[in-house]
Amino acid sequence: MKNPEIKIVGAGLLGTSLGLALARQSVVATLEDQSKANLRLAIEYGAGVESGPEPDLVIVCVPPDLTADVVIEQLQKHPAATVTDVASVKSKVAQDVALALPDHAHRYIGSHPMAGREKGGPSAARADLFFARPWIITASKDSSPEAIELIRDVALRLGALPVELSATEHDEAVAMVSHLPQLVASLLANRLNLGTAEQLGLAGQGLRDTSRIAASDPELWVQIISQNSHSISPLLAMLQSDLDQLAESVAQIDQAGSLAKIHALLQGGNSGVARIPGKHGGKSSNYQVVTVVIEDAPGALASLLTFIGEIGVNLEDLNLEHSPGAPIGLVELQVLPELATKLSDQLVSNGWRLV
Amino acid sequence: MKNPEIKIVGAGLLGTSLGLALARQSVVATLEDQSKANLRLAIEYGAGVESGPEPDLVIVCVPPDLTADVVIEQLQKHPAATVTDVASVKSKVAQDVALALPDHAHRYIGSHPMAGREKGGPSAARADLFFARPWIITASKDSSPEAIELIRDVALRLGALPVELSATEHDEAVAMVSHLPQLVASLLANRLNLGTAEQLGLAGQGLRDTSRIAASDPELWVQIISQNSHSISPLLAMLQSDLDQLAESVAQIDQAGSLAKIHALLQGGNSGVARIPGKHGGKSSNYQVVTVVIEDAPGALASLLTFIGEIGVNLEDLNLEHSPGAPIGLVELQVLPELATKLSDQLVSNGWRLV
Repeated sequence: MKNPEIKIVGAGLLGTSLGLALARQSVVATLEDQSKANLRLAIEYGAGVESGPEPDLVIVCVPPDLTADVVIEQLQKHPAATVTDVASVKSKVAQDVALALPDHAHRYIGSHPMAGREKGGPSAARADLFFARPWIITASKDSSPEAIELIRDVALRLGALPVELSATEHDEAVAMVSHLPQLVASLLANRLNLGTAEQLGLAGQGLRDTSRIAASDPELWVQIISQNSHSISPLLAMLQSDLDQLAESVAQIDQAGSLAKIHALLQGGNSGVARIPGKHGGKSSNYQVVTVVIEDAPGALASLLTFIGEIGVNLEDLNLEHSPGAPIGLVELQVLPELATKLSDQLVSNGWRLV
Repeated sequence: MKNPEIKIVGAGLLGTSLGLALARQSVVATLEDQSKANLRLAIEYGAGVESGPEPDLVIVCVPPDLTADVVIEQLQKHPAATVTDVASVKSKVAQDVALALPDHAHRYIGSHPMAGREKGGPSAARADLFFARPWIITASKDSSPEAIELIRDVALRLGALPVELSATEHDEAVAMVSHLPQLVASLLANRLNLGTAEQLGLAGQGLRDTSRIAASDPELWVQIISQNSHSISPLLAMLQSDLDQLAESVAQIDQAGSLAKIHALLQGGNSGVARIPGKHGGKSSNYQVVTVVIEDAPGALASLLTFIGEIGVNLEDLNLEHSPGAPIGLVELQVLPELATKLSDQLVSNGWRLV
């Protein structure tokens, strides 16, 4: 397939990252942004150029609230082009487009590359942002097959993994795996405003992990939640019911049945979390952990990893844990189970300290 | 101070880890456990011996529900010893002990080393478990100063950081930074039981982090929540009130004021999470991130870190992100801000690929 002509509208994190990723594939995109500063920055980074030929594909990368209007505008402006977007809610945009331009809706196909960062703007852009991430394509029965193929082709060029879902299926899935966790993290973190500095000083990794995404951009998330409220609302209602029962059991802890109800919820949490596939698509418990103590000094980790490279063991994951104020660090090495004994034995017999 | 004679009751994760850590400091503890298998395993690991001299300090490391009874038993058995425990709720045990043995309560001082693992049992024990972790000591006005000093001494020998709090202060603090996050993660993960495999296949790092601790042991947690219900209950009530308001706003998204309420909650989450101190006790945003692309092959990470060691840059943290099924990995290096430019420049000019 010859290189498609691509226009990107919106030079923020996603638009600029797309431009950079396309440039690596020798596709020079045309960029457009209302903000002259964003546009210039994205062009200086090498994400594309300011004007180009009539596009085969327009990718709209503006905030969710503006997406439908900009998609409609681009469908009108480029009557032969396929138009897609990257917003994280899909039904609302599709409805708005179908209503405004029923005769052109076959040229609009929503997509959602499941990639992002906590930071925004062109300066946060990364050419690898889409690499190995799902790229959901929400075609409908009216969509032109050529248009779908064009978007699949672009996703594959950028190393993303195309997944086809209906807009409704998409919105329900992200309500559960993305929007609900965001709201739960925000609800938890909001409670921390009541804590004293001394209390928060006792925070461990559990609280840090559970609340991390509460640092996300409120403006962006209000738009996402507002557009997907009908998928999120039933999940929140079930969460309310679970929380009401939990709160009642905890408040009346001596009442018969309270402990069993709390236990059932905790066990439900066990089984729910076990259903999340691991990093490599397998179960998260597929790897074995070998923990090594190293000095907290330049080169210490390197010499450990040089040794591991020399004995030919490939690491699946690595986690470095500093001991605050201490001259050592703990390195958690995750390896395939069949390699764990070899790794441990060779480390120990070469003087490394395991825990 | 001469080496104290120490007896550990309960050879599970914490008791065995304590024994191993003491052994490194040339203190041979006496171990006791109802389970002969646990006891033998802990002794074979080198965590202590089966019988020894009359103890100066007894450390009770049994499940929370049994802690008070075992503390009382040990106070009676060893009339000259100081007795402490490691349970994660403190007021209930102290009350039970004061009620049963009012004349001996000055010899019982609760403590809570804030260390643990998702796995339990003697085989999961680590000598470094307490290293650089807060070790909370919950003395009361009746506590003997010598007894407090003895526990501080042991905590310091193991590399832990002693913190003195009242039992109530402790229980309120852990309700917020440990028990509430546990319940919130379980509530979220419990909802995942309704998701399809296809939906959960779209899970990203946000959901993984937010739900990770939902994998914790329900039996242990029922005991913890039951003993600290009076501190947890008010937090759950506030969470209910936040969730009710959020659920109503999302269900009636078009009603005036809904978006502002959702925005306020998200913003509250931003400010709450910003209050958690970073790994080294500073703000979590104190480090700058430099991300490098490496091959997913033995030795690739090592050669990167060898290079970083050679240019003398000390890493504050390191996160390895695999791209599933892809031959590359992303390495996020966290360094002091003043070193970030040096590191980036030297990496790039030596052919490393940054993103």
